Amino acid sequence: MARLVKKFGGTSVADIDRIRNVALRVKAAVESGDQVAVVVSAMSGTTNQLVNFTHNVANVHDAGEYDAVVAAGEQITAGLLAMALQDIGVRARSWLGWQIPIETDGVHGSARIGRIGTEGLEKIFAEGQVSVIAGFQGVGPDNRITTLGRGGSDLSAVAIAAAVNADRCDIYTDVEGVFTADPRIVTKARKLDKVTYEEMLEMASQGARVLQTRSVEAAMKHKVRLQVMSSFSDEPGTLVVDEEEIVEQEVVSGIAYSNDEAKITLVQVADRPGVAASIFGPLAEANINVDMIVQNVSADGQATDLTFTVPRADLDRSIKVIEDSKESIGYRQVTPDPDVVKISVIGVGMRSHAGVAQRMFKTLADKGINIQVISTSEIKVSVLIPAEYTEIALRALHTAYGLDDE
Amino acid sequence: MARLVKKFGGTSVADIDRIRNVALRVKAAVESGDQVAVVVSAMSGTTNQLVNFTHNVANVHDAGEYDAVVAAGEQITAGLLAMALQDIGVRARSWLGWQIPIETDGVHGSARIGRIGTEGLEKIFAEGQVSVIAGFQGVGPDNRITTLGRGGSDLSAVAIAAAVNADRCDIYTDVEGVFTADPRIVTKARKLDKVTYEEMLEMASQGARVLQTRSVEAAMKHKVRLQVMSSFSDEPGTLVVDEEEIVEQEVVSGIAYSNDEAKITLVQVADRPGVAASIFGPLAEANINVDMIVQNVSADGQATDLTFTVPRADLDRSIKVIEDSKESIGYRQVTPDPDVVKISVIGVGMRSHAGVAQRMFKTLADKGINIQVISTSEIKVSVLIPAEYTEIALRALHTAYGLDDE
Repeated sequence: MARLVKKFGGTSVADIDRIRNVALRVKAAVESGDQVAVVVSAMSGTTNQLVNFTHNVANVHDAGEYDAVVAAGEQITAGLLAMALQDIGVRARSWLGWQIPIETDGVHGSARIGRIGTEGLEKIFAEGQVSVIAGFQGVGPDNRITTLGRGGSDLSAVAIAAAVNADRCDIYTDVEGVFTADPRIVTKARKLDKVTYEEMLEMASQGARVLQTRSVEAAMKHKVRLQVMSSFSDEPGTLVVDEEEIVEQEVVSGIAYSNDEAKITLVQVADRPGVAASIFGPLAEANINVDMIVQNVSADGQATDLTFTVPRADLDRSIKVIEDSKESIGYRQVTPDPDVVKISVIGVGMRSHAGVAQRMFKTLADKGINIQVISTSEIKVSVLIPAEYTEIALRALHTAYGLDDE
Repeated sequence: MARLVKKFGGTSVADIDRIRNVALRVKAAVESGDQVAVVVSAMSGTTNQLVNFTHNVANVHDAGEYDAVVAAGEQITAGLLAMALQDIGVRARSWLGWQIPIETDGVHGSARIGRIGTEGLEKIFAEGQVSVIAGFQGVGPDNRITTLGRGGSDLSAVAIAAAVNADRCDIYTDVEGVFTADPRIVTKARKLDKVTYEEMLEMASQGARVLQTRSVEAAMKHKVRLQVMSSFSDEPGTLVVDEEEIVEQEVVSGIAYSNDEAKITLVQVADRPGVAASIFGPLAEANINVDMIVQNVSADGQATDLTFTVPRADLDRSIKVIEDSKESIGYRQVTPDPDVVKISVIGVGMRSHAGVAQRMFKTLADKGINIQVISTSEIKVSVLIPAEYTEIALRALHTAYGLDDE
């Protein structure tokens, strides 16, 4: 007997038929003897409808009211799934964030989870019943509903799994697991059986979009074994686990890409102390996250080019900030470029293997792809290249690191 | 300065435009210096959608899960109205049943309200803010959401008004008030300026459908002044008040009708002690409410005809119960008749005036309408007649009692 927390996302519960399918899956787990708690997102259509309502009703309003409205979506799914389970003979009850309670810091729209009450959940486990928990929501110190931000139901599931010491937290989604690369682009991509938290974190934040970053961080912190799997098939998915659990570690476990970034180049920036602060200070004040930065050494000691990346959605705002600071920075020209992609090679095995970055550079060079910016961390190498080369680069790197499914 | 509770039903908040209209109305009241709390129903479309979801997802389920799902409807409206108010500069916050709390007995689907917490609401009044309260919902002793049954938002509003000692509870609906008769049938019907709780109760339970019966009972018990008014016009509505508040009381204040009943006649029932019990016992056990009963005196002391009415929706079930008990009752034939209407003449002035019933009987006789069953109470006379005469009877009685708007 294992204790499992199973999380089903918005597409997995998008309509009544899918909710009934989820109920069948949960029933199968219960009948195999497992203790099961389920965390659900809102039906994807419901979320869209509620968000549209809030956009249409008011321009200015408290985030707390937004939370009260959108949290209704998960409430509806939780009740409906409990009903669907009861209908097929599985004893179940729904839980809302405030009922458990899932206590949060009260920051509406992006609350952090604090204490989680386990007494009620343990009682339901002990009775052999299934708890169906509304994801994405908690309750603040003022007794009002808070939501956890985008992808918050993943975080709810991991936090519940940690609180009740679950043996595993299964995240059901519309893909079969974590792949060595995006299978829509790299047809030879393989599903990974296991991946480490660190790698998953890099993949999530590098655009792999399978799991919400905060949920992976929480799983790593609390040592919650995660499984990412499809809600539409019976295949096992990908286990996200501690490094020690993976016996034979590949040097590189995956290639991720992100086209959410844009490049900005400042031409002929004065090469003097404090120039970086004069550029990145105003951007930080405008709440713009700068990711990659490269500064050429100037030949004459007077002026150099400086390139960095920002979220593509913030590109126009960034340009405005830079132009407003033109006098204090001192540069000849600012050149925006949204047509870039960041490709990342990820693997904890890199720590003990040399030559990983070199293979990346050579592979791209062989394809005639010019690298614009490079950044590295302990377990990844990222490069910025022109967006049009995305597919070529991903496929070539996938082959070069021996990841192809033969 | 008055303290007001204003309740807006499902059609008054049916879409985003109407919610913004409600916000403007509330703003006007706030700007005239009143303290205002608002109770809202679910958007009518949302309720339908949620109820459909529950019907499609399961045949068998706990009423508690149904409550969790449908209560989301009022939660959504409360949040949206608070947002709409904030958007036009009115400080407001939403409240859910469990937050106030509105404590109930925990009977899902038809909970009775117990204690209502007023501390939070009083604080919001004192700050000059508007509380926007989700109607129809409360919380049970086990901390789960309960709903109050059909029309429960009216009851929420009255209970809140009683708890915070409001000067008045305004029920906004899609009609302009309480009329002397249904204005769609009786074109000369007049809107009543005032009506007593007792009359309103008779009108509500006799099919006037303006206010939910339980909410009128609660208003009477707690002496809450009610006003029924239109959410689509600025006219004053009808005040529902204590009898003492009405100086010049008409003998008859209104004519109501109900086509929710059906007639059953048992032909040649044995005229012996205990026969009534043998008929109405099994019906009561089947949870069927019998309303009017008439038993003819038998000429020969052996057999008589017996006629009674049941809710039309229960007619088939009632016939089955009667047929199953044929042996113990003893009758020759059972005749169902769904084509009947109950017409009621209502007025507290009847208590001190004779001849009210006689005028009704004469008026109907003059129109050639045969009365099938008669029942009376202190402040009403009801008759059952063939349904086809509904309009003729209503108009003739309206004229006969001097109610016509000249």
